[in-house]
Amino acid sequence: MVRWEPGTRERLQDAALELFAARGYEQTTATEIAQAVGLTERTFFRHFTDKREVLFHGQQALTDAFLAGLHDASPGASPIDLAVSALRSSASFFDDERRSHSRLRQSVIDANPALQEREALKLVGLGRALGGALRDRGVEDMTADVAAQLAVMAFGIAFAHWIAEGEQRSFEAIVMAVVREVGAVTGELDR
Amino acid sequence: MVRWEPGTRERLQDAALELFAARGYEQTTATEIAQAVGLTERTFFRHFTDKREVLFHGQQALTDAFLAGLHDASPGASPIDLAVSALRSSASFFDDERRSHSRLRQSVIDANPALQEREALKLVGLGRALGGALRDRGVEDMTADVAAQLAVMAFGIAFAHWIAEGEQRSFEAIVMAVVREVGAVTGELDR
Repeated sequence: MVRWEPGTRERLQDAALELFAARGYEQTTATEIAQAVGLTERTFFRHFTDKREVLFHGQQALTDAFLAGLHDASPGASPIDLAVSALRSSASFFDDERRSHSRLRQSVIDANPALQEREALKLVGLGRALGGALRDRGVEDMTADVAAQLAVMAFGIAFAHWIAEGEQRSFEAIVMAVVREVGAVTGELDR
Repeated sequence: MVRWEPGTRERLQDAALELFAARGYEQTTATEIAQAVGLTERTFFRHFTDKREVLFHGQQALTDAFLAGLHDASPGASPIDLAVSALRSSASFFDDERRSHSRLRQSVIDANPALQEREALKLVGLGRALGGALRDRGVEDMTADVAAQLAVMAFGIAFAHWIAEGEQRSFEAIVMAVVREVGAVTGELDR
């Protein structure tokens, strides 16, 4: 029987992030991460398939935060209303307590092209999940893709601002500023 | 002195794509690609840093096709006009002759998560290059990001339609349909 200590995963994630930031991602082994919190490599691999997944384990929770916004939207909401609702809901994931963690994680990713690739695909996956959920609500194919990817785009731009040094605004305030900018830029489109 | 036969790179790319599609990406070696066109592994590595880069060597040409559209735009063009101009210009890259090649390439990428990651980062890089070019034209920071990433988003959605089995429309016709859809979706934004 596997002993499953509450919080073990989070302790491993925190230790990994500190080691990656201090020594470099490539230079840190799964064994070292486990040892940093008094655990064995075997325990590490009960929680994560590999070293890289320590940094990406939150993907499902992030997707769920977006999808919660779709579930909460009114039945008659337009595709862009749904996208904005998903964005507002994702903001609950990025509270001020998480900001320094997110900043540190990004610095590790920025230093490693393979991690940048994985992060880029994470956002593609988020867009696909959102697009699928919009189709499930009856939104037409290309409309669903556009609305879903607008949400992911606004998320990515907002996130980069949110973790910038000295930035004080909440994630929600920033992401709504990005949405307004999307409105301003696309308002110039010939319709 | 290195002998540089015109067309060698393209012959290697074509051979690689056929081998990747027939046998699988993982199962194909650089040596086999080179031998398929009567060349040595050494010649292969004069053209490509590794096997993966055979699939991604066109990134700069794609970026240049987008940037050409910015150079051609009138001085007073709005950010979204610039984005649309870049998209129209990128269409020159995707003529009908390239469609079956692009379709085959995508089938290889879809079968391999590591290639999907690389492809996702390619589009992130394209967005950064476009955003930088818009800033160089004096477009404000967040506006440049929004306009650039709208272009990349429209490109990605259009590309997926363009390579779909049975699709007959030109890349430009499809990408302009996506731009109209962006206008329709964002037209519902409260302004």
